[in-house]
Amino acid sequence: MDEVLDDLQNGCYIYQPASGFKFGIDAVLLADFAKSKARTAMDLCTGTGIIPILLAAKTDIDHFDAVEIQHDMADMAKRSVSYNGLEDRINVCECDLKDAPELFGRSRYDMVTVNPPYMKAGGGLVNAGDMKTLSRHETACTLEDVVRASAGLLKPRGRLFMVHRPSRLADVFWEMRRYGIEPKLMRTVQPRQDREMNLVLICGIKGARPELKVLPPLVVYNSDGSYTKEIDTIYGR
Amino acid sequence: MDEVLDDLQNGCYIYQPASGFKFGIDAVLLADFAKSKARTAMDLCTGTGIIPILLAAKTDIDHFDAVEIQHDMADMAKRSVSYNGLEDRINVCECDLKDAPELFGRSRYDMVTVNPPYMKAGGGLVNAGDMKTLSRHETACTLEDVVRASAGLLKPRGRLFMVHRPSRLADVFWEMRRYGIEPKLMRTVQPRQDREMNLVLICGIKGARPELKVLPPLVVYNSDGSYTKEIDTIYGR
Repeated sequence: MDEVLDDLQNGCYIYQPASGFKFGIDAVLLADFAKSKARTAMDLCTGTGIIPILLAAKTDIDHFDAVEIQHDMADMAKRSVSYNGLEDRINVCECDLKDAPELFGRSRYDMVTVNPPYMKAGGGLVNAGDMKTLSRHETACTLEDVVRASAGLLKPRGRLFMVHRPSRLADVFWEMRRYGIEPKLMRTVQPRQDREMNLVLICGIKGARPELKVLPPLVVYNSDGSYTKEIDTIYGR
Repeated sequence: MDEVLDDLQNGCYIYQPASGFKFGIDAVLLADFAKSKARTAMDLCTGTGIIPILLAAKTDIDHFDAVEIQHDMADMAKRSVSYNGLEDRINVCECDLKDAPELFGRSRYDMVTVNPPYMKAGGGLVNAGDMKTLSRHETACTLEDVVRASAGLLKPRGRLFMVHRPSRLADVFWEMRRYGIEPKLMRTVQPRQDREMNLVLICGIKGARPELKVLPPLVVYNSDGSYTKEIDTIYGR
């Protein structure tokens, strides 16, 4: 498969498919939202490994495990980790996230990050064999699978950081609470000041009591089409 | 108890306690959010009857029932309905909303509106006998009571319109889905463009399939402290 090595502008590089599924602003915002003092982190649906590679540069997290079910993606992630000399901190595993608590150990992680497929398996045009499809549709794993695995992997009081579409917000809250992860922090992302949100960043804490804190909306573009100051800061510009 | 007769600036008037619990912008925004082609509507926790009185002026809804557990509030609501000549359209009943499906009939309403107490019974300083306390704290009814009663009262595909604090958003979604009312539409309310939301308007539909639509945020104040054009329109100015 054709691939490219892209410069992340933070001293790191990442292998990505030349066409098809590349990481987007959702991954960049999630990595920024998930900055924390954790020591051990798990990234589910890691794809090309963008989240742990960005977080490794932004935090002092000692150890990341990262899980990806698609062979070509997991392979690119592994090579990106080597290319950046991050083998000591990031371990990429080609496996099904549903097996992760068994494979990696229960109640082991301070945090889990996940940028899951946004669309339900039934929705949209689906080609089950296609890499783009697996990354975008819940064909290989559902939101429930993701939250159940996270609940198994997290220590008590551990944090699950997720980015998702607003259309799935009720699903996200529902699955988190069902599996004992209480939604505690939310930040909505709007393309512009006067437009509706198109992404939601959510942090749930395992075993916490109910009460959601909401941050001011994160606005991506100014009215003149340039990036807002906050987005520039997140991208390190 | 001391009371005042306030001008709603839409041709109607409302009796309210001179001190203590008066209706706020949340009630005004909920009444606007709930404008619809329904024929029968129920308002729970109606207080002084502000929601049906505002909705009667804004819509062609034939019949409103409105439930209030506090005697003094229900009495003011009844007198406001008479004062405005709305006896043919609005019926105020002093009763416990938990009994409403039994008293008024199951699966009978096209829509239910509710501006419930925002705070959990345990939170904040609580004086159980106080009218302000009952209106603000879940001492007489919990969010679960409100949603359970709504689910009983609504026809299939009937709509529940609620305003609540963002801190309770996960609770609202959770209770709605538990009782078969799917959150379908959400609008967040921000005091200013760059501040976090402080109210959330939610519409759930009984028996609908999951998928939440989100509207652009409703901003209350311009940066110079004046009301935004949309708020002026809602207030009919």
